[in-house]
Amino acid sequence: MQIAMVDDKFVPLEQIERVYLDRGFFFGDGVYEVVRSYAGRIFALEEHLARFSNSLGAIGISKVDIEQIRGRVERAFEAAGISNAKIYFHMTRGSAVRNHVWEDDLEPNFFLTVTELPDDTEQKSKGIAVSTHPDWRWKRCDIKSLNLLANVLARQDAASKGCAEAIFVDDGGLITEGAGSAFFAVFGQTIQTAPLTSNILPSITRKFAIEAAQNLRLEVVEESFTSQRARQGDELFIAVTTRNIVPVVKFDEQTIADGRPGKNTVLLIREFLSFVS
Amino acid sequence: MQIAMVDDKFVPLEQIERVYLDRGFFFGDGVYEVVRSYAGRIFALEEHLARFSNSLGAIGISKVDIEQIRGRVERAFEAAGISNAKIYFHMTRGSAVRNHVWEDDLEPNFFLTVTELPDDTEQKSKGIAVSTHPDWRWKRCDIKSLNLLANVLARQDAASKGCAEAIFVDDGGLITEGAGSAFFAVFGQTIQTAPLTSNILPSITRKFAIEAAQNLRLEVVEESFTSQRARQGDELFIAVTTRNIVPVVKFDEQTIADGRPGKNTVLLIREFLSFVS
Repeated sequence: MQIAMVDDKFVPLEQIERVYLDRGFFFGDGVYEVVRSYAGRIFALEEHLARFSNSLGAIGISKVDIEQIRGRVERAFEAAGISNAKIYFHMTRGSAVRNHVWEDDLEPNFFLTVTELPDDTEQKSKGIAVSTHPDWRWKRCDIKSLNLLANVLARQDAASKGCAEAIFVDDGGLITEGAGSAFFAVFGQTIQTAPLTSNILPSITRKFAIEAAQNLRLEVVEESFTSQRARQGDELFIAVTTRNIVPVVKFDEQTIADGRPGKNTVLLIREFLSFVS
Repeated sequence: MQIAMVDDKFVPLEQIERVYLDRGFFFGDGVYEVVRSYAGRIFALEEHLARFSNSLGAIGISKVDIEQIRGRVERAFEAAGISNAKIYFHMTRGSAVRNHVWEDDLEPNFFLTVTELPDDTEQKSKGIAVSTHPDWRWKRCDIKSLNLLANVLARQDAASKGCAEAIFVDDGGLITEGAGSAFFAVFGQTIQTAPLTSNILPSITRKFAIEAAQNLRLEVVEESFTSQRARQGDELFIAVTTRNIVPVVKFDEQTIADGRPGKNTVLLIREFLSFVS
């Protein structure tokens, strides 16, 4: 008899709950998104749904109705009734006895949570410390997939050093992005970040940060730079959906400028918040 | 109220079943093993448990009792009563509301299946076709983790070309390994395979294939080689737990030698089978 075992408990394989045979478990075979609301309104849902659709397409999960996903996100957000909410959702290719090759008739599995966003006032006003980590991730970081072990290990390493984010550095010594954020440096009146390639996520907050910079007449340079160059930044910041723009005041133990959030970063946060109100 | 949603169904977050909050889902934050039995006996369980322990350690899942895992594997195998069985098991870091950084008090989750191994007589006697794919995987392929999307996509691509395995080729044009196997070429009386680095899995079947080759007085070279060199091989084969040694007779549409399993490969299979009986 073919069997399954969950911790210490046996079940005949044909009776095991579908969730245990999710390809999300066996292979991380799925993609996800995180959106947030500001004061009762979900921000940039269109952009996130478009990226979700791209991610699904990139790994060949087809026949997903994005309007159905939108409906689920909106209904869940409404049901939760949380004003500043974090909405996480993923879709996996489906459930089946483990086999790398998939059958075309799999039914994708959807999972979502709506949680309270913790207050980030202190991070915004004081700035955060970050530490670098070799970029161990795969070569398709443009796909927002569930294969996030490299991100987890880097973020844990950062946390062990008292840092709020890990910044990935590739084999050539160039910064790609944060473990869960885009990374920017400000040099004078120029903001710089890595260009969109398959090495980084097409971050939606990155896009809005760039738009905010353009509104402020800052020059925007999408070109990779090294850790050494980052240390020389007049200002540093990260961009991430859940916290929009967060000043970085310490980089691998080195204090950036005077150790306080930079003036352009503060202006960028203000400009960004004008998008969400 | 914080909520979770499974497909179309809402559940208060605090009532969601633990399995849905498994970090295996969110991050692929876990490791796995596959062992098999031959005629009622599990082969090389010690080696697999040792590697499992190494993988757990490499990602910082601590406090796992390997003897308990051994007990579960043995009990499950016995309960299933399948003579030629495939035993898959994974352990994830535990369940918690999604957050990259983990808490130390997480309780790891264990899952296992025992299934019938399909007969591979035809693959053994006729050989298989393989196709190459760029190695998109992360930089710690020595860890047998649940981050397998690159493997899945490569294997699916191979299947779409009528191939039974995908062979990964790195940026430098060198073969690393198969999506689910070690890869070998035979040149005269020499067998060659990539060396053990963080780019490949320390395959247990690879180890036994090398031992078999030494028993047969073949020279063993652990040195990477290109696809072009592989095409010139007198023989090619893959090594994988579930099927031990399988001849490769077609490589990216090119027929290898006379298109039949090579004589040394056949001898290696025979020698390997002497280990398991």
